[in-house]
Amino acid sequence: MKTTAAPRIITILTDFGEDDWYVAAMKGVIASLAPEARTADITHRIPPGDIRRGALVLKCVYRFFPRGTVHLAVVDPGVGTDRAVLAARAGGHLFVAPDNGLLSWVLREDPGAAAFRAVERELFLPEVSTTFHGRDIFAPLAARLAAGREPEETGPPLARPVLLAPPLLRARGDSRWDSEIVGRDRFGNLLTSLTREAAPGPAASVLLRFRGRSARLPVVASYGSVSPGDLLAVWGSSGFLELSVNGGSAASELELETGDRIGVELWP
Amino acid sequence: MKTTAAPRIITILTDFGEDDWYVAAMKGVIASLAPEARTADITHRIPPGDIRRGALVLKCVYRFFPRGTVHLAVVDPGVGTDRAVLAARAGGHLFVAPDNGLLSWVLREDPGAAAFRAVERELFLPEVSTTFHGRDIFAPLAARLAAGREPEETGPPLARPVLLAPPLLRARGDSRWDSEIVGRDRFGNLLTSLTREAAPGPAASVLLRFRGRSARLPVVASYGSVSPGDLLAVWGSSGFLELSVNGGSAASELELETGDRIGVELWP
Amino acid sequence: MKTTAAPRIITILTDFGEDDWYVAAMKGVIASLAPEARTADITHRIPPGDIRRGALVLKCVYRFFPRGTVHLAVVDPGVGTDRAVLAARAGGHLFVAPDNGLLSWVLREDPGAAAFRAVERELFLPEVSTTFHGRDIFAPLAARLAAGREPEETGPPLARPVLLAPPLLRARGDSRWDSEIVGRDRFGNLLTSLTREAAPGPAASVLLRFRGRSARLPVVASYGSVSPGDLLAVWGSSGFLELSVNGGSAASELELETGDRIGVELWP
Repeated sequence: MKTTAAPRIITILTDFGEDDWYVAAMKGVIASLAPEARTADITHRIPPGDIRRGALVLKCVYRFFPRGTVHLAVVDPGVGTDRAVLAARAGGHLFVAPDNGLLSWVLREDPGAAAFRAVERELFLPEVSTTFHGRDIFAPLAARLAAGREPEETGPPLARPVLLAPPLLRARGDSRWDSEIVGRDRFGNLLTSLTREAAPGPAASVLLRFRGRSARLPVVASYGSVSPGDLLAVWGSSGFLELSVNGGSAASELELETGDRIGVELWP
Repeated sequence: MKTTAAPRIITILTDFGEDDWYVAAMKGVIASLAPEARTADITHRIPPGDIRRGALVLKCVYRFFPRGTVHLAVVDPGVGTDRAVLAARAGGHLFVAPDNGLLSWVLREDPGAAAFRAVERELFLPEVSTTFHGRDIFAPLAARLAAGREPEETGPPLARPVLLAPPLLRARGDSRWDSEIVGRDRFGNLLTSLTREAAPGPAASVLLRFRGRSARLPVVASYGSVSPGDLLAVWGSSGFLELSVNGGSAASELELETGDRIGVELWP
Repeated sequence: MKTTAAPRIITILTDFGEDDWYVAAMKGVIASLAPEARTADITHRIPPGDIRRGALVLKCVYRFFPRGTVHLAVVDPGVGTDRAVLAARAGGHLFVAPDNGLLSWVLREDPGAAAFRAVERELFLPEVSTTFHGRDIFAPLAARLAAGREPEETGPPLARPVLLAPPLLRARGDSRWDSEIVGRDRFGNLLTSLTREAAPGPAASVLLRFRGRSARLPVVASYGSVSPGDLLAVWGSSGFLELSVNGGSAASELELETGDRIGVELWP
């Protein structure tokens, strides 16, 4: 806060949807406790309780915000149980989330990441409900961090935060992997677990094997490199090998969804 | 504006949805007339014309924003008719809304609330359409209030603003009420009209009677206190007794919706 | 930036939806490159690739923002192909968009509009993906303009930006036109291509002819001027003659959609 003219940003990711007052209540708390902070919605349309999806979305976007941004993520099926509350630092960013794996990608990507179990009750709202920690615990914590508090001040270090199992990516040779679909987007693009760093070099096509089927897709530079309606693969904007249809949905075409296993073989 | 460093906030609640340009037009007007103000969406997904839902959502969230916040609420099936335009002060907050009951909860909760019939046309846009008062009347008024004008400057006091009938809550003894469902959320949680203040003391279970059925639910501290798929009752984060299913939808399970009557009996 | 106390606004219109991280990634880039700028969503629910819809929505809303606002519009089915990137000035506002017709209304409405082909790569992100120019090219450009760069600095003038064919509006006499439906909203209101400026004077009713049917609607001041469920026509808030149903959907009632041709005849 002292070193930049611009106020801190707090991004918000939840599974609360947009029909209710829940996200707005969190923004009200933030405006009350950190009046200078600005909020930016990531999405509130994580399917209810889908920690894996929340973790992926957060991974794909957080680094495009300025360093020092506070990322407030609430996908919290365990609200009111004894799961811990995390305040963390990773990749030059700050995070507030339940300790349920929502920060898996973020924490794994930075060997220097540090997580703390936030227990200091004076950082929460004075009254904490048992059903809405987003408003009463997580939003106040994010506001405190945006106002200059450090994750270390929220509670003791947490040596082993909950981490989801990493997505399947098992090499079966130089350019062949057992992979899985780690996510899809509204356009039906499918993200495989294969990253560009894991691939040995340029590829002209990819051979997919799944559920007794196989399909060969050209690896191209952009959607428009193939005819409308045709399948393609592309090194996507989030670093994964993506399966797409020009002007259509690869998820529908291939009948694949998040979590499905798939064999991936790159051809030069 | 003079007493705080942070700019005023204008929250926005409408039934305009997110497909069209209507909400953005209001934000454009606000940015033009009150450049320092910041906006925060409550929701734009109030079902078209559902004043009762809008009133409840506003009640559940407004007090989490800082005092002095301007709440702009437009659910206005009577646009272009002679319904009045309200500028109001209640609970330390400011409100702009059509005079159709949208402020019912807000005005009832503060005995010192004051409402004014906004008629000063120089506070509106120079050209007022007959079909989009959100842009031409309500947003400009909210912007004026955020910029420092007082509700009193918008027009004469309105002694009897339109109020919706309060939700049914009739005591049938010490711990038994004729109640109704006042709202539901995306998770299928149902809010009854019974508030914690109206209840005599702690309860271990609640007996529900509706449409010839009865059901006994444990009153617990959080969703996770019962097995997945089981019904429960909880004093919810908005102050009402809520009916829920751990990991499921009470609305589906009980086949109840907003407005349905229900007998509620607390057991120690 | 130098002449006003308030920071520049960047509006954002896309077909990215709200399920994914795409819009947030653009906001992160903007926050990184233009920390003082503020963003305002227009909508992210343009149907995928529907340039015509995007162009109409932009036209209906941009002028309600303050002069100097930057409007970032990304409906870009040609991402990764050789379509140009536009930075433009029109109506006192700035625009960033693919050169595919998305700015058709905006550029046509201002004879002094100027468009430039943005090619200066140092204005983009250092790494430009082939599938997400919204994040890597368009958002950075919008941020640069908000921070004070001029459209002229982005590249050479583009004499003939792509323009969509204007909507059909052919006079068949003093008060009769071949028209078309240029858009609809969530309430089912239908916008015809007939503008108030094109109409000779006041009208009491309108005779519609389409698909062998005809219907006469009263031209009234507001939705409430007819009985609930009745059809009406109104000079709408965006300047077009609109077809509506009081409390219902004209799109359903008349079975008309965007792009349908319709004969319009005004009666005094």
